[in-house]
Amino acid sequence: MEERLKKQMDFLLEVDKLKFINRQTYLSDGTRRENDAEHSWHLALMAVLLSEHADEEVDLLKVITMVLIHDLVEIDAGDTYAYDEAGKQTQRIREEKAADRIFAMLPKDQGGKFRALWEEFDAYETPEAKFAHVCDNVQPLILNHATGGKSWRERGIRRSQVEKRNSRVGESSRTMKAYVEDILDKNVEKGNLKNE
Amino acid sequence: MEERLKKQMDFLLEVDKLKFINRQTYLSDGTRRENDAEHSWHLALMAVLLSEHADEEVDLLKVITMVLIHDLVEIDAGDTYAYDEAGKQTQRIREEKAADRIFAMLPKDQGGKFRALWEEFDAYETPEAKFAHVCDNVQPLILNHATGGKSWRERGIRRSQVEKRNSRVGESSRTMKAYVEDILDKNVEKGNLKNE
Ligand SMILES: [Ca+2]
Repeated sequence: MEERLKKQMDFLLEVDKLKFINRQTYLSDGTRRENDAEHSWHLALMAVLLSEHADEEVDLLKVITMVLIHDLVEIDAGDTYAYDEAGKQTQRIREEKAADRIFAMLPKDQGGKFRALWEEFDAYETPEAKFAHVCDNVQPLILNHATGGKSWRERGIRRSQVEKRNSRVGESSRTMKAYVEDILDKNVEKGNLKNE
Repeated sequence: MEERLKKQMDFLLEVDKLKFINRQTYLSDGTRRENDAEHSWHLALMAVLLSEHADEEVDLLKVITMVLIHDLVEIDAGDTYAYDEAGKQTQRIREEKAADRIFAMLPKDQGGKFRALWEEFDAYETPEAKFAHVCDNVQPLILNHATGGKSWRERGIRRSQVEKRNSRVGESSRTMKAYVEDILDKNVEKGNLKNE
């Protein structure tokens, strides 16, 4: 097998491990937690359907590729829960080390592109990165809303925490910002989120 | 919430069920079977990395969208194992009924686009559909190769069956066709596939 294809196939086998990384959020039927691969698939489909709500036009292929790879570093670094302040302190260092290893498995041009896309997502500046974050932030709201706030209730999460995490959604899409507010109102009302 | 967004969000919640549809193939560590959402994520990433090996140029965004949605009909119709000849007899009817229901949840323009893309995948004629099938066919080979042919051994699968399923890979990519042959040789040698 030529060297380039071998690298690509070794990488595609390695990233199978994303399916073993569990998140805090439960699937819509509440039976088990979601893993990163399922989450990434869901975000990609969200991007296809919802990118029309981005206030500034986005390059959809770029957004999709970003969300497909945005969690690969968690293969080594693990999932850091959005409301785990201690874990978030060391998150960047753990994830950079992971990116160094994982993206280097690819042919140089493709590894470099993925690394740059991951950095762009993390820097949260371009329209594509902002919209990718909208998807990444809103998707767990859909699931929490469906499960009666199962993962929120388990941890006693407050509305203000979810608001903080979603505070930049409006930079990308007024429509999605309104959606987030609506979901938060409903979940406070149901007692799924603490009204603080 | 405006009607259009409501339809999109209802659809995005509905398709969460793809995560409950298990395939026959085991994940790379052999501990459990893969589900359709994980599989679809894996295919999308394969498409990004491997589309350069398509002999005829493909529209990558189209291929990705195709693989992201190609299994949604299985939410209602279930997964039909590639080597289940009886199940394949009724597969088309079950899947069309599913497509009628699931894609109709979306705003008409988006539902129509997804339906058309799913039909295009199934018709197996365009360069994009052919390359999407390359991904769909080759991905379980990667996993079977990694697990010592676990799902093949359980069912006593023969090389000729896998060859038949992969018989059109070469229409899209000579490189991927050579890859398939190489994997089959290795797995016959190891006794993971019957040499028939
Ligand atoms: Ca299938």
